[in-house]
Amino acid sequence: MAPQESIRECLLGIDAGGTKIATAAVDTRGEILQANELETPAHDGDKMVKTFRELVASETARCRDKGLDIKAIGIAAAGYISRRDGVLIESPNIAWRMVPLKMIAEEASGLPAFLDNDANGAAAGERFAGIAKGVDDFVYITLGTGVGGGVYTDGSLLRGNRGVAAELGHIIIDPNGPVCGCGRRGCLEALASGTAMGREGAELAKQNPNTIMLEMAEGDPGKITGILVARAAGQGDETAIRAIQTWSVYLAEGIVDFIHIFDPKIVVLGGGVSESGHLFISQVQDAVIERGIRALVEGIPIVLSKLRNEAGVIGAAALAWEGISSSR
Amino acid sequence: MAPQESIRECLLGIDAGGTKIATAAVDTRGEILQANELETPAHDGDKMVKTFRELVASETARCRDKGLDIKAIGIAAAGYISRRDGVLIESPNIAWRMVPLKMIAEEASGLPAFLDNDANGAAAGERFAGIAKGVDDFVYITLGTGVGGGVYTDGSLLRGNRGVAAELGHIIIDPNGPVCGCGRRGCLEALASGTAMGREGAELAKQNPNTIMLEMAEGDPGKITGILVARAAGQGDETAIRAIQTWSVYLAEGIVDFIHIFDPKIVVLGGGVSESGHLFISQVQDAVIERGIRALVEGIPIVLSKLRNEAGVIGAAALAWEGISSSR
Repeated sequence: MAPQESIRECLLGIDAGGTKIATAAVDTRGEILQANELETPAHDGDKMVKTFRELVASETARCRDKGLDIKAIGIAAAGYISRRDGVLIESPNIAWRMVPLKMIAEEASGLPAFLDNDANGAAAGERFAGIAKGVDDFVYITLGTGVGGGVYTDGSLLRGNRGVAAELGHIIIDPNGPVCGCGRRGCLEALASGTAMGREGAELAKQNPNTIMLEMAEGDPGKITGILVARAAGQGDETAIRAIQTWSVYLAEGIVDFIHIFDPKIVVLGGGVSESGHLFISQVQDAVIERGIRALVEGIPIVLSKLRNEAGVIGAAALAWEGISSSR
Repeated sequence: MAPQESIRECLLGIDAGGTKIATAAVDTRGEILQANELETPAHDGDKMVKTFRELVASETARCRDKGLDIKAIGIAAAGYISRRDGVLIESPNIAWRMVPLKMIAEEASGLPAFLDNDANGAAAGERFAGIAKGVDDFVYITLGTGVGGGVYTDGSLLRGNRGVAAELGHIIIDPNGPVCGCGRRGCLEALASGTAMGREGAELAKQNPNTIMLEMAEGDPGKITGILVARAAGQGDETAIRAIQTWSVYLAEGIVDFIHIFDPKIVVLGGGVSESGHLFISQVQDAVIERGIRALVEGIPIVLSKLRNEAGVIGAAALAWEGISSSR
């Protein structure tokens, strides 16, 4: 009977994003036992907090009813986090500020809760149940609207002095590159995000109007997004393929920097853009080998995230697992 | 009597460089009790090993004769190191390869020995007895002929999967910059080393022949070194001052990247160039604030190494101290 019992031990992962709060009860092997999600009013901070609190209470109760033994709650949230204090300081595009999410979750559930940012959560998830399972040293890069990341060194998440380390999107790649959201020029985020892929596609489309990217964008280059570039490249559009080639080299430059700095065992690419990873992963790998210090970059696989759209909740559950494991 | 006794407990630090092997018995507060050094035949690998072995044996004996209680030996060596195996793989400009320095030191002394590269040693030294005393999260950048570094995260040296992490000189700053020794263009090392400072000075001297840098270099811009630029700037030479200004901005770009990545409490500049640090430290600090993400870079002091020419041996002793502390 004992093995059966231990499988029922689980973690509740909560992924608090801008448009929805997703939850999942996840067992200690990373399997989702039960999931739920609620759309959230991102413009209404108070309602966000209320929704969050009610969801924690109802999901905890629902798990108990099903005989699941929840050991802890993990919360991954977009934005700046003070992990030590358990407080979400602020989120981009969400109207909640200075919210003590850890305390709220603990009060609503009677369980220990652990809060971190979504990129750290996603990295934790890959180590818990994804492509980086059991790997002590790896760099996780999330490629979406922006570029973020989480880094494991010697089995621990890199957090830094104030807990705001691993801003991987904001290293310089080209001082003459486009202005980044942070104000600097040519950051990795400005050159290798999904947004940057769309911009690269739009620029090439202006010079090559017979690309299907323009058809897809109803003739307006300004409507060319990263997703659209990937879709066109997937259909064999040469202009889109060229846009992705240029973009891949920028991404590779960043990865080379990270390998030189961290000496990771693997580099994991996650986030929305990684869903089109088959279009660029081998180009990125080749460019890394070509540009890095041979002895350092050779033999370091660049791989795609395994968790994809479950990365949020499984990552959050992984934060809970790490939280209780480190205090055991 | 007990406090007296504990002061006599010490570490033997060995700094194995290209032109000399320096040793020092260092107490647990970082004070040098006794030092020695021997010139080394860098072109003769076998003789280097022999010199190293004899020096370990004789210094250990000399310490014992003086009543010093050596607890462990720390060895900081230039080059690629396999710390786990205790083997020096290879050194730039020194003809020894695949030398099991840890084992040799242990056999010659009967004491536990710990081997690491010189940059990690220097970082360890700053934490043990220098400007980073007691700081758990900091980035140490060594500015000399090249650029190297050591990073502490959460109280531990960042080593990476194979032990070759923290190659801080080889991150990209400008893809159109000068070719780096590693083959890539515009690495931090190619733009912010002592060598780069000399090159910057030489380029400006060609356009401004009335600089005293040219006098100092006997009229030959090719003879302008970083040291010479610093000396001229110290004497108020405007061309040299401008060279250092340009150089400082490149260094600041690298420091911004490191702050964004590591969220350190402080950034320490060491190595030969840091001895002229008063000429550029405030410019670098200003450029970091100007270029970085405000919330991340503000309040992070950029400081100069405190150990200077003792960094090698004290750093090596610190490696010994960390080695025995972690296994206690």
